[in-house]
Amino acid sequence: MTLVACIGGGQLGRMLGLAGLPLGLSFRFLDPSPDACAREVGELVVAPYDDRDALDRLAVGAAVVTYEFENVPVEAAAGVGAVPGPRALEHGQDRLSEKELFRSLGIPTARFGRLEETGLPALVKTRRLGYDGKGQRRVDRDEPLEDGELAEELVAFDRELSIVGVRARDGETRFWPVGENVHREGILRVTRAPARDAPQVEAERICTRLLDALGYVGVIAVELFEAGGRLLANEFAPRVHNTAHWTIDGAETSQFENHLRAILGLPLGSTALRAPSVMVNVIGGIPPVEELLELPRAHLHLYGKAPRPGRKIGHVTLVDPDEETVARAVALASEEGGRG
Amino acid sequence: MTLVACIGGGQLGRMLGLAGLPLGLSFRFLDPSPDACAREVGELVVAPYDDRDALDRLAVGAAVVTYEFENVPVEAAAGVGAVPGPRALEHGQDRLSEKELFRSLGIPTARFGRLEETGLPALVKTRRLGYDGKGQRRVDRDEPLEDGELAEELVAFDRELSIVGVRARDGETRFWPVGENVHREGILRVTRAPARDAPQVEAERICTRLLDALGYVGVIAVELFEAGGRLLANEFAPRVHNTAHWTIDGAETSQFENHLRAILGLPLGSTALRAPSVMVNVIGGIPPVEELLELPRAHLHLYGKAPRPGRKIGHVTLVDPDEETVARAVALASEEGGRG
Repeated sequence: MTLVACIGGGQLGRMLGLAGLPLGLSFRFLDPSPDACAREVGELVVAPYDDRDALDRLAVGAAVVTYEFENVPVEAAAGVGAVPGPRALEHGQDRLSEKELFRSLGIPTARFGRLEETGLPALVKTRRLGYDGKGQRRVDRDEPLEDGELAEELVAFDRELSIVGVRARDGETRFWPVGENVHREGILRVTRAPARDAPQVEAERICTRLLDALGYVGVIAVELFEAGGRLLANEFAPRVHNTAHWTIDGAETSQFENHLRAILGLPLGSTALRAPSVMVNVIGGIPPVEELLELPRAHLHLYGKAPRPGRKIGHVTLVDPDEETVARAVALASEEGGRG
Repeated sequence: MTLVACIGGGQLGRMLGLAGLPLGLSFRFLDPSPDACAREVGELVVAPYDDRDALDRLAVGAAVVTYEFENVPVEAAAGVGAVPGPRALEHGQDRLSEKELFRSLGIPTARFGRLEETGLPALVKTRRLGYDGKGQRRVDRDEPLEDGELAEELVAFDRELSIVGVRARDGETRFWPVGENVHREGILRVTRAPARDAPQVEAERICTRLLDALGYVGVIAVELFEAGGRLLANEFAPRVHNTAHWTIDGAETSQFENHLRAILGLPLGSTALRAPSVMVNVIGGIPPVEELLELPRAHLHLYGKAPRPGRKIGHVTLVDPDEETVARAVALASEEGGRG
């Protein structure tokens, strides 16, 4: 039995497990929480992410170690030889280093640096550990930045897109169709794939440049702003990504299965679209499951997490839906539609 | 968290678990083997199927109890209120009672009973506990039958088909496209869905009659012989079935998910075809995974079972394949292609 070890036992780990069990893989997860929702699909080592002993217990006997979030301490990941490798993690953890990498690769970004460089208004973000809009504020007047803060030009973008791709050990790359994402209060709410009039070629070019520069192995996601017909790279995540959850139901091979295939040196699966899909995140409360399952061609994915305001506890993929169905799913999946 | 309890922890239980975890369900299985392969997707109670204490432990806190094979002792299943109900199990466990039920419902079957009734040559089967061609022999001359044996007319059928359907608590029924099945040495090797020129309407009529007569809830499979344009019911299985494993990849909703939806009183999902599919069972040895994953649009499902000659340890679904791909998969998935 091939064992895959994963730093982090949240929903991404859980969905890796669900995709990997049918490939004959077994899973072990490291997570500080005994309630980590991946526990239902593998063994759980409960410890902090930087606990050396726990990391050793995680890795023993594993064919490969991976991670499901980008704030794993780099030394911890490197110490157990995690894939994707430490370079992706280093850049992915630090917004400044990430943007500098984009720039060095000729990938357009919004202006960034000090406020003099970005102009006003600007977004000021912590360089590290921000997610879902946390750790960022809008700045309209010149003010001193704190240590560890970075300013970014406030881009009046037309829409947010993401390209998710996978690179195999032999350097082969494949990409899923570009998704179009709607955030609210800093949290992803809806992804439509493919995005209408998707700039697929340009997005793949950006992603390829990044994958090759990092010598990357596994699934990566790049968030993009489209502004005046131009693509600006906003950030990347060296892992499976919320904006490609629709691939479980809407693509020939899901991002989860292809991440596993890549890191294990197995042949990649087709990333072709099976059907246009809309993914709606379930945020906060337990949703009305019956109503969601009554929606035509709806595929429900709950993560086994306790409800909490603002928390992603599941998603629904709608296959080739009409707009009425999308609106209904969004209403059912929002805090207000939920019951808890 | 809604808990589903399942008598039996084999691959069918495992695939129920894999389908149910995304619905927010948790699982507990009862199996005599501590290695039961469903253990990776739920809690495992290790005990014989008729152990009263173990059955109670299995059922405590469960929203519903179901089973994944038809040789569960009827009293054991009834004692914990298992769904589908005991009538289906009683008939499904006894070939004579099963055929008499078909006859009473006006569903055509091969002749059965004593050798005088069937003519020669005939197949003589044990009334109980036969599976995968075990417990049956061909008889060419008149001879006395043992107690508990049943003769069946040896039908020169053109092909073997199966219809798999689901009935909800409110009586709604849905059916997947009829599959065409190839057995070798009594073991299912390949299912093609839909069968070419499938007698869908007639097959659904047969299945509906059975489902309604039994007041059935859940997924059922009926194996059919097609002989001279006529359908003869061979047997039914009151559970999810190997000939509908292709529905995981090829149908809008899999048999596993719809079984769970039915027994939990949730709305049924669409049984529509996503794409024509061919399922190939992996028999005996661990297959060459890399080669299988290289096949176009191949979806691998291994069950985490130790290899053993003649044992079903997985299956591969090929989505809309050409005949060359099917032949290659069959070669890779057979004992000879396998490595163990």
